Amino acid sequence: MSATLLRCNGKRLWETLEASGEIGRVGERGLMRLALTDEDRAMRDLFIKWARDAGCEIAIDEVGNIFARRAGLDSGLLPVAIGSHLDSTICGGRYDGILGVLAGLEIVRALNDQGQKTRRGIEIVCWTDEEGTRFSRSMMGSSALAGVYEVSSVLAAADKNGKTFGSELQRIGYAGKLPAGQRKFDSYFELHIEQGPILDASEKNVGIVHGSYEVRGRRFLFRGETAHVGPTPMDMRHNALAAAGHAIAAIDDIGWRYHDSGGKTTVARIECHPNLYGIIADRVEIGVDFRHPEGARVAEMANEIDQAVLAAAKRAQVACETLDQWTFGGFDFSSELVSLLRSTAAEMGVPYLDMRSQAGHDAYSIAKVAPTVMIFTPCKNGTTHNFNEDAELERTMPGVDLLLNAVVKRADQ
Amino acid sequence: MSATLLRCNGKRLWETLEASGEIGRVGERGLMRLALTDEDRAMRDLFIKWARDAGCEIAIDEVGNIFARRAGLDSGLLPVAIGSHLDSTICGGRYDGILGVLAGLEIVRALNDQGQKTRRGIEIVCWTDEEGTRFSRSMMGSSALAGVYEVSSVLAAADKNGKTFGSELQRIGYAGKLPAGQRKFDSYFELHIEQGPILDASEKNVGIVHGSYEVRGRRFLFRGETAHVGPTPMDMRHNALAAAGHAIAAIDDIGWRYHDSGGKTTVARIECHPNLYGIIADRVEIGVDFRHPEGARVAEMANEIDQAVLAAAKRAQVACETLDQWTFGGFDFSSELVSLLRSTAAEMGVPYLDMRSQAGHDAYSIAKVAPTVMIFTPCKNGTTHNFNEDAELERTMPGVDLLLNAVVKRADQ
Repeated sequence: MSATLLRCNGKRLWETLEASGEIGRVGERGLMRLALTDEDRAMRDLFIKWARDAGCEIAIDEVGNIFARRAGLDSGLLPVAIGSHLDSTICGGRYDGILGVLAGLEIVRALNDQGQKTRRGIEIVCWTDEEGTRFSRSMMGSSALAGVYEVSSVLAAADKNGKTFGSELQRIGYAGKLPAGQRKFDSYFELHIEQGPILDASEKNVGIVHGSYEVRGRRFLFRGETAHVGPTPMDMRHNALAAAGHAIAAIDDIGWRYHDSGGKTTVARIECHPNLYGIIADRVEIGVDFRHPEGARVAEMANEIDQAVLAAAKRAQVACETLDQWTFGGFDFSSELVSLLRSTAAEMGVPYLDMRSQAGHDAYSIAKVAPTVMIFTPCKNGTTHNFNEDAELERTMPGVDLLLNAVVKRADQ
Repeated sequence: MSATLLRCNGKRLWETLEASGEIGRVGERGLMRLALTDEDRAMRDLFIKWARDAGCEIAIDEVGNIFARRAGLDSGLLPVAIGSHLDSTICGGRYDGILGVLAGLEIVRALNDQGQKTRRGIEIVCWTDEEGTRFSRSMMGSSALAGVYEVSSVLAAADKNGKTFGSELQRIGYAGKLPAGQRKFDSYFELHIEQGPILDASEKNVGIVHGSYEVRGRRFLFRGETAHVGPTPMDMRHNALAAAGHAIAAIDDIGWRYHDSGGKTTVARIECHPNLYGIIADRVEIGVDFRHPEGARVAEMANEIDQAVLAAAKRAQVACETLDQWTFGGFDFSSELVSLLRSTAAEMGVPYLDMRSQAGHDAYSIAKVAPTVMIFTPCKNGTTHNFNEDAELERTMPGVDLLLNAVVKRADQ
């Protein structure tokens, strides 16, 4: 590494990750830290303490996003932002999202150590509720900032106990005054564990993420008729769960047909009514997710899935409707920032893979309002959304150091 | 009909069915009267009033079964019992179970009208919670009486809000003092709508039910691993819901293969964890029900289902276990009572079908402790466990009159 290049303190970063991992820890290294819970509050409090100790100024917006700014030399310029999220799913680990925020903190600390100033400020952003586990929609905070979701709809979202995002945000003391759309960035960098097995299986430790997979989703509702499971002959049934079963099986088969080219399909959610022994189900809803690196192929998959669902409904003699469908991703990140990462990596002698992101990230929302790019680091076996999520310091730091150097270059431009 | 044969008052029976149908009515003719709810209490209160008005003496046992006895000439003899249930599923109708209880009441009233005494007493029985909708297990009251379930386990059964059968029984005032196993019967008759389409489609109005289908059930649990739906390749997944989908589809196919010979398979219940968008399911449980008129075929079906479930688990790379399995039915009712019904029907000139019951009934439990038989009457299109359940007076009364005459013959033996 050239003498002009900067390095972070990996040991210190790892200690912050470990301290964070204690807040909501499950078992040895698992994490459950749902958005706007007491654990989320405790983590936010700790993050703010750390950021203030590192000299940052804190701002909080109306959906609870936290902005911790290290001032730049020219206060009239927009800051370079580094962000991700501190919340987890119900079965998370120490790194998903958290690494991206705490890498930002480590970068600020490393610059402080070296007394290095930057022209633009550097802002660490903690986005509220990326995971979407509690209030059903993901990337809530970043989507509110980017105008993808209305602030009012974010605040009104209710969890399964009827508690709203807004009331829970008040309760934990993180309902800020700053209007969500008001915070602006020169650029946005997000470092994240890959959440897939590609980097882990490769010799390389860094993924430069130049774009995102196209992600599509559907919610289908099968409508049949209740009947007694005993005397009702197969040919007189309108069995909504049989339809869903055929659909889930067919959708899984479609995923396998596209597997070699990187496609995948998932049904992760099902609701069955009345869901009782003895009564044939009359209403079953399934949520389908499908992804492919190539937009044209994802469109083919969509068509196959729709056909398979219709065929399943027909087979079970039920009606079927598409309740909802959505698309996100399928775009390129800022080519300018991708070039900056590539040239910086080359300068540092850090080998990297060019990748597309398969998971959704806050960066997807922020890409709508600022030049954005992502860096991936490996996670063991690609395991994530799982208490066994794991990452290694040695394989993580090349990505963090790349982030540091690229951010400083951008901030000094 | 010969002059010595008796007849019920169909109009009066229909009026009691209509009055009953108002307690827990949903829409025009639907019914939701779950066990041990306020509606169940109101119906019990009304039934007891009607029975007392008809001169019956009431006893209630410790699981809430109600016994309304019309005294016989010889009080030392066990009574002939006529019973069924007054509760419904969440999507029931006016006739399922209720017809059997109120037909008993009509028989008592008809005998009163004609001042006819019988040697043995005639006892109308209302069994608690036949449907099993609320406390997960069906035929609770009759199974407690017959010793199929322990009384303590019945009282301890909890609904989804954690309320127990025992506490709800107390709450509605129907926790009697009589030990459940103490009430004895000379014989037990249960008249029920068929809950299938066979009688409705035939020219005949009466089914003499000489036995029951063998019913088998299984609960399977698929155990996979949570993972992110985005970046996790198809071949690295352990997707429990994909396994369940393949299993449900295969089980439905098995049902169709046995359809021509009267077999059927159903998955009516599924529980998926964590059941969230974005996270591959790690635990999915399904409940399977399968039936066939021939015991040998149901054993074949069991084998095919077990194989299909294993294959589905293998395909989705998950583990699978059988949490529970059960068998009921598959026996013959009392040949003596079947003969009595056949000869009485012949005497009355009532055409009938010889049938096996496909649904479970309280009679299945009582058959273990007393000579038992069932009579079926038609329901429109076989529709049941459905708000549109319907039956016609004209097609119902031949069965009720057969019940009356057979019961009187038995009570005078």
